Amino acid sequence: METLKVSAKSEPKSVAGAIAAIVRTGEPVEMQAIGAAAVNQAVKSIAVARGYVAPNGIDLVSIPSFSQLEVDGNEKTSIRFLVEKR
Amino acid sequence: METLKVSAKSEPKSVAGAIAAIVRTGEPVEMQAIGAAAVNQAVKSIAVARGYVAPNGIDLVSIPSFSQLEVDGNEKTSIRFLVEKR
Repeated sequence: METLKVSAKSEPKSVAGAIAAIVRTGEPVEMQAIGAAAVNQAVKSIAVARGYVAPNGIDLVSIPSFSQLEVDGNEKTSIRFLVEKR
Repeated sequence: METLKVSAKSEPKSVAGAIAAIVRTGEPVEMQAIGAAAVNQAVKSIAVARGYVAPNGIDLVSIPSFSQLEVDGNEKTSIRFLVEKR
């Protein structure tokens, strides 16, 4: 599954475009975000992507979960979003 | 539909308990969050709530969207999460 890393500086419209492109192929997408600002951008991206794929008759849902990632040797808790067709 | 307002200070376990209680009755829940810190707490709450209701055979999904709210006379963009059974 494709994983999109979302940061505080990610542009929601760009991430949404990437989500839409993958979801239109019928595949789910995974997103990972560390920190409140990145999680916020990830959520905005999903909201925007819903609008991008709605004309294709796709109703996107998201499933958030916690995930442990190692970043520069440190254990970090990230939020993982599974985004897929309902 | 019940609306839970989530702030930066909301405790994810408490919000998750409220989500779980409503979802177990078969109803969807709406959450509203303004700002990155509140959105982050809302997402964590959904992730925790998924674990609370999984033993009941409920698979929760979330649908984020943008929503305009008036707060103290000012127009604010909030994130609205619809949380429901898949």
